[in-house]
Amino acid sequence: MRRSVNALNRRSRKAGLPPGSLIHTGEAAGTATINVRKYDPQGVRTLPAFSGQTGEKLPDPQSHCVTWYQVQGVNDATLIEALGRKFKLHPLLLEDVMSTDQRPKVEDYGDHLFIVLRALHFESGKGLRQKQVALVLGRDYLISFEEGPAEGNFNGVIARLVEGRARLLQEGSDYLAYSLLDSVVDHYFLVLENISDEMESLEDRVLRGKEDLLSSIHALKRELITLRKSIWPLREALVFLDRQHSDLIDADLSVFFRDIYDHTIHIVDTIESFRDMLSGLLDVHLSTISARLNQVMKLLTVITTIFMPLTLITGIYGMNFDWMPLLHNSFGFAAAMGGMFLITIGMVFFFRKKGWL
Amino acid sequence: MRRSVNALNRRSRKAGLPPGSLIHTGEAAGTATINVRKYDPQGVRTLPAFSGQTGEKLPDPQSHCVTWYQVQGVNDATLIEALGRKFKLHPLLLEDVMSTDQRPKVEDYGDHLFIVLRALHFESGKGLRQKQVALVLGRDYLISFEEGPAEGNFNGVIARLVEGRARLLQEGSDYLAYSLLDSVVDHYFLVLENISDEMESLEDRVLRGKEDLLSSIHALKRELITLRKSIWPLREALVFLDRQHSDLIDADLSVFFRDIYDHTIHIVDTIESFRDMLSGLLDVHLSTISARLNQVMKLLTVITTIFMPLTLITGIYGMNFDWMPLLHNSFGFAAAMGGMFLITIGMVFFFRKKGWL
Amino acid sequence: MRRSVNALNRRSRKAGLPPGSLIHTGEAAGTATINVRKYDPQGVRTLPAFSGQTGEKLPDPQSHCVTWYQVQGVNDATLIEALGRKFKLHPLLLEDVMSTDQRPKVEDYGDHLFIVLRALHFESGKGLRQKQVALVLGRDYLISFEEGPAEGNFNGVIARLVEGRARLLQEGSDYLAYSLLDSVVDHYFLVLENISDEMESLEDRVLRGKEDLLSSIHALKRELITLRKSIWPLREALVFLDRQHSDLIDADLSVFFRDIYDHTIHIVDTIESFRDMLSGLLDVHLSTISARLNQVMKLLTVITTIFMPLTLITGIYGMNFDWMPLLHNSFGFAAAMGGMFLITIGMVFFFRKKGWL
Amino acid sequence: MRRSVNALNRRSRKAGLPPGSLIHTGEAAGTATINVRKYDPQGVRTLPAFSGQTGEKLPDPQSHCVTWYQVQGVNDATLIEALGRKFKLHPLLLEDVMSTDQRPKVEDYGDHLFIVLRALHFESGKGLRQKQVALVLGRDYLISFEEGPAEGNFNGVIARLVEGRARLLQEGSDYLAYSLLDSVVDHYFLVLENISDEMESLEDRVLRGKEDLLSSIHALKRELITLRKSIWPLREALVFLDRQHSDLIDADLSVFFRDIYDHTIHIVDTIESFRDMLSGLLDVHLSTISARLNQVMKLLTVITTIFMPLTLITGIYGMNFDWMPLLHNSFGFAAAMGGMFLITIGMVFFFRKKGWL
Amino acid sequence: MRRSVNALNRRSRKAGLPPGSLIHTGEAAGTATINVRKYDPQGVRTLPAFSGQTGEKLPDPQSHCVTWYQVQGVNDATLIEALGRKFKLHPLLLEDVMSTDQRPKVEDYGDHLFIVLRALHFESGKGLRQKQVALVLGRDYLISFEEGPAEGNFNGVIARLVEGRARLLQEGSDYLAYSLLDSVVDHYFLVLENISDEMESLEDRVLRGKEDLLSSIHALKRELITLRKSIWPLREALVFLDRQHSDLIDADLSVFFRDIYDHTIHIVDTIESFRDMLSGLLDVHLSTISARLNQVMKLLTVITTIFMPLTLITGIYGMNFDWMPLLHNSFGFAAAMGGMFLITIGMVFFFRKKGWL
Repeated sequence: MRRSVNALNRRSRKAGLPPGSLIHTGEAAGTATINVRKYDPQGVRTLPAFSGQTGEKLPDPQSHCVTWYQVQGVNDATLIEALGRKFKLHPLLLEDVMSTDQRPKVEDYGDHLFIVLRALHFESGKGLRQKQVALVLGRDYLISFEEGPAEGNFNGVIARLVEGRARLLQEGSDYLAYSLLDSVVDHYFLVLENISDEMESLEDRVLRGKEDLLSSIHALKRELITLRKSIWPLREALVFLDRQHSDLIDADLSVFFRDIYDHTIHIVDTIESFRDMLSGLLDVHLSTISARLNQVMKLLTVITTIFMPLTLITGIYGMNFDWMPLLHNSFGFAAAMGGMFLITIGMVFFFRKKGWL
Repeated sequence: MRRSVNALNRRSRKAGLPPGSLIHTGEAAGTATINVRKYDPQGVRTLPAFSGQTGEKLPDPQSHCVTWYQVQGVNDATLIEALGRKFKLHPLLLEDVMSTDQRPKVEDYGDHLFIVLRALHFESGKGLRQKQVALVLGRDYLISFEEGPAEGNFNGVIARLVEGRARLLQEGSDYLAYSLLDSVVDHYFLVLENISDEMESLEDRVLRGKEDLLSSIHALKRELITLRKSIWPLREALVFLDRQHSDLIDADLSVFFRDIYDHTIHIVDTIESFRDMLSGLLDVHLSTISARLNQVMKLLTVITTIFMPLTLITGIYGMNFDWMPLLHNSFGFAAAMGGMFLITIGMVFFFRKKGWL
Repeated sequence: MRRSVNALNRRSRKAGLPPGSLIHTGEAAGTATINVRKYDPQGVRTLPAFSGQTGEKLPDPQSHCVTWYQVQGVNDATLIEALGRKFKLHPLLLEDVMSTDQRPKVEDYGDHLFIVLRALHFESGKGLRQKQVALVLGRDYLISFEEGPAEGNFNGVIARLVEGRARLLQEGSDYLAYSLLDSVVDHYFLVLENISDEMESLEDRVLRGKEDLLSSIHALKRELITLRKSIWPLREALVFLDRQHSDLIDADLSVFFRDIYDHTIHIVDTIESFRDMLSGLLDVHLSTISARLNQVMKLLTVITTIFMPLTLITGIYGMNFDWMPLLHNSFGFAAAMGGMFLITIGMVFFFRKKGWL
Repeated sequence: MRRSVNALNRRSRKAGLPPGSLIHTGEAAGTATINVRKYDPQGVRTLPAFSGQTGEKLPDPQSHCVTWYQVQGVNDATLIEALGRKFKLHPLLLEDVMSTDQRPKVEDYGDHLFIVLRALHFESGKGLRQKQVALVLGRDYLISFEEGPAEGNFNGVIARLVEGRARLLQEGSDYLAYSLLDSVVDHYFLVLENISDEMESLEDRVLRGKEDLLSSIHALKRELITLRKSIWPLREALVFLDRQHSDLIDADLSVFFRDIYDHTIHIVDTIESFRDMLSGLLDVHLSTISARLNQVMKLLTVITTIFMPLTLITGIYGMNFDWMPLLHNSFGFAAAMGGMFLITIGMVFFFRKKGWL
Repeated sequence: MRRSVNALNRRSRKAGLPPGSLIHTGEAAGTATINVRKYDPQGVRTLPAFSGQTGEKLPDPQSHCVTWYQVQGVNDATLIEALGRKFKLHPLLLEDVMSTDQRPKVEDYGDHLFIVLRALHFESGKGLRQKQVALVLGRDYLISFEEGPAEGNFNGVIARLVEGRARLLQEGSDYLAYSLLDSVVDHYFLVLENISDEMESLEDRVLRGKEDLLSSIHALKRELITLRKSIWPLREALVFLDRQHSDLIDADLSVFFRDIYDHTIHIVDTIESFRDMLSGLLDVHLSTISARLNQVMKLLTVITTIFMPLTLITGIYGMNFDWMPLLHNSFGFAAAMGGMFLITIGMVFFFRKKGWL
């Protein structure tokens, strides 16, 4: 939640400003850099990285090849504005790129498509982390915006480009967009796997019933809520993309985008199952607590039930009547102790039969 | 709830009256004032504020500039009726303006659009407060109705007008309407941020598990219910606006209204997440209460289990048998005390091993 | 529930009868009477009330004025059948009029519209009461059926007619239908207000935490369920009316019907909020019960923990060993008592620190 | 559930068989019989009942009258197949007739409509029972299949036929189909009434709070789940029928089918309300159990709190110190007893004030 | 869950690879084999089984007969790729075949349809097991992919082919696809039956109220969640198939596919009912635990209430006052014992009347 608060916090700083105001709402990150790669079926050419001040000097996209502008870090308003001027991007689009708590969505601006989604990472000990990824898909170019410095979301794609894998080089910018989306969505499975591991270990511990795991269950539940909130809207966005039939995306590629859609549905289904299982786990846990209370109460009852009659017998022989049976008999004490012993044995036997001991 | 009751209360006073009856259902507020501003790309002209009795003398809108009538306070039926006559507003529209517990909605009256929404403010200590904001968007004019005296919803917009920020002056009344809506919706993020803070502090206190926080959780839950009820219908209203394709709103602006829609969805999502988290918090809290009961019962059991055997021993040596072992031995008492001491040590050791102490 | 059961009971008497059988399923009520009013822009003329046997002699509607037949009481099959013959009403329509547990609905029979809804009243002490109201809207006439004798649902409308309020007299039968619907729906706000009051007082009592309020909460919950069941379908019915574009309703009036629709949505929203709050209240109440159990257990533990050591001391000094320290000392008793006093003080101090006393 | 299991059990015997395999999955019932009735506006002619072996000799439908084949018992595959050949019914239709655990549905086979629904009966002590009813509606004929021997679902319709009630004789096979459907749906109200009675008595007993009613609540809940499962799909099926505009059903009759639809919605609404109320009842019941635990704990605490101080006093005067106050005083015992009596009085007074006694 | 984790685990290995990468994500299985069967109305011809290395030599489909390629085992990428080349299958289709945790779906690739679903088996002791089944339906051929070695999903269909059952031989590949789908869906009823048995036995044990069944309830709940996740999407997929009107499926067969759809809905309904009943069972179980706690507390209270007064009496007569009544009387002890006996009798009588013993 802490992150979500901070994002809201920064967002609220914008209240009162004109729409399209470029204020970075994410966490402060290192300076932004832009890697430019140009490729055609012959091969890929990587240009030296650009940083903020040189934003204006970015090469233009060309019609005979695909140009990929990979922007890492979105906290440099000057750079973002320069990009906006160069590619004629709508001020609200730029605002969305810099406000890094956007809901996943797809917007069609006619000569370019705008896609926002959330890249997820699960670091053990640190829990779930999210970064915003935004793509601007034009005719011959693609601009990708990553919230922070490289987390390696796109490393697989870059590797395939460099290795000159046939398909990627032969297709246009739409296939590149698909590859990047696919790469982000594939990472969701890694996150789900981590959560699944965590849940399994939690389940084992709950069923063992020793610890108080409620805050762990609560933490996991919160993670699932966040996860769902990040992924669920992507589903609608992809449906929108499918219905839009933008001519920026080749008809042949729709089966690929449909595949990402299927993955997203699969992931959302799995999250729902996890939530159902987690709520089942909570029931088990709460009932375990009740069962433990039952155990404690049973012990108390056993102790009380065994000792009270014994104490009563000692009380009886502690009375000061002149005459009481066996009082002056030399084996009186032994008889009393024996009686008490028999009562104890009987009680223990009774409770064992009842399954309380 | 108290507010909601009052609103209903006043509303029910209207039962039996003809439709379109102008009775103010909100809280009594100071006298209504109307600020009129006229602007075109050259600049803005602010007219002296009008109050109730001078309502008829309001300047007419002109086709070469945008005229913004900012009505503050809606409890003056005479003034509202004067406005209604001047701009040919439907009696039901006027009724809605004065009944300040409307559900957010958009209505298309052909030559003007009617937009109602709720402005939210979070005052620390006082909790969530709402005011109704209504906009009547005509060709060259915009009338804004605010329930109470200025809360500063529109201060940012006014400032931009006065400073002569280019875009706002160059666009028509539709862009002004958008700016006002955007300004109200941006305030929602502030409210969410406050609630998020409150929730976080509540969460910390719940996990510490000392206090009885149920009424605080309940209060927060009620706030979220109210918030959701105020914002949720805005979503539909904006969808309606988008589908209506009213020619009062320039096609170029639809991306802006779509942006407000996205914000609304984002806010509703966040509220839903908050409700889920809150219900998780409630579970944690209830389980903490159970755990505390377990603690109490364990202490009782420990006390009983330690003292009962000791008391039994004293009872045994309190019996009046003529002969009991060690009775007349000089270290008998020490032996008994020693035995009791050993039993105590053993018990404490046992319970510590069980984790009860 | 009792009422709902009775209604079902009577309804089931109809199983096996041919469709369109006219059997009154509501509570027996006084004899039915019909008030006829004719009006045009010049004024209103009220005819003497008709009762059952004179049903056939009802005046015909005329094209130059609006005729309103206000039927009060629907348990007279002869009268209803006579009306059915006169206005060519479908047998199923007549059956619905007499079966007074209909779901709110709108049906279009071509030359007349049939509207059923439920009028609600909240009588303090008696709780929620419902009556069925049915309207048959024809070209120049309107027939209103009220389940029981006058509850005053329509008194406001009658008053306006008699006072000669301009609009009502100048419009056709469709505006009269709207006015009657509006009058019934406006009464819902009164009911909500009463429930809101009850809920608020319940909430105060729950938070004070003294009484067992579960059955009160349950009763209120049941009332909300009934309320929702009565109002919810009205929403669909009004949407149907809006989509139908029946030429019996003037296009200019659609904004008025839309207004009733908005009120209905508002009411349903409020009922949902009430249900959410009530379930929150239930949680608070149940947790209060748990908290009270905690209190009881704490007291028991405190009592046990204080007295057990004291009793042990008396037990020790009640042992019959020949030698025990201080036994024959003259201030031995005082020392023992002092020790016990100190233990008590210590315990009280300890529990007060723990916040248990 | 037992029944549902059996049905599944038998159904699973079919796994691996070719589709359209005629295996009866319901309970074994007596031999199937077919009653044939022919009617036109002049009157009805009832043919002698046919049984299985004579299935082939069934009279053909004729175009100048309506022929109703009432099949009672569907466990005779030979007979069903003979019918299938005669009326050219699809193998899957025949399979559905014999598999008596179908979901209610309507299927349009062009020259005949296939309607499946469930007839419900509530026998006191035996609970809810269901039978499958299937109708095949052709141009001039109607075949009705009832799972078991006559339960009297259609007795009302038969009686009206025999009595020569005008409408039924004058209309075609579609009106007969409507009458049979209406008759089955009208029985649902009887079932709801029985459940409502049971719920009311349960509610009374829960509020009295003496018995353990959880298994009764559970049983009723299960009945509502089954009921809902049987009726809910009928709603869709009727919507499908309405949209299909099959020319087998006269347009004039659509208002009648719409009426059945309304009844179905009403019943489903009522079931939902019952489920809501039942879950409320469960809350009340669980809280009653908690309250009883509170009572027990209070009694234990009262007993302990009263007797512990008394026992302490006797312990003090049982100590063997040489000197203790009042020990040798002749009214010492009386004083001790008096003190104990006063303490008891005080405690009783204290607990009564606290409302625990 | 363990399986689901493994699947995710393997899936995540694919993150970073290009789309369409053929990596088997299911459990390792024996070598893949392909059984080829060709049939026309004259009869069926079974070819010798092919295994991986001979994949290229598979016979081509022919237009005058139906060729069924039954692939068992999908972990041989070479074989799958060979098939892909032969039948021009899309890389993503091949990827889906090998990734054996697909959501059920139907995809239309123009000249072939791709259908994925999950075959379910319930092995007693081992619980629910799932295998992925994929079908590629072409004009004259059908390729079926089964995840593991034969589980006998299709044995019924094969038997019918071999026995030369008329219909199957006379129809095309579309009817074969239907038969295989039907065979898989029919197995679901077997699984439901097993779960129903398990639930019934669980219910009996819960109502007997002896054991702690929470983990059993939790396990069953998890099974239902998994089951629902596997079957629910099949519903949409079949709707899609119905709407697609692919010319690969004969219009006459749509009633058959509709039948499978009905079965799927029926199964999903039943799963929902099971979940509702299971949650009811959980309530009963939790309340049984509470009731047992009540029992324990009552016993403790009874024991305490009986013994405390007796102990007090012995305490009184253990006091060392010089004079106490009956002390020196010879039947004093008998009187004390008698009094104690009477008190015990009275208490037992009292608690029996209260129903605690």
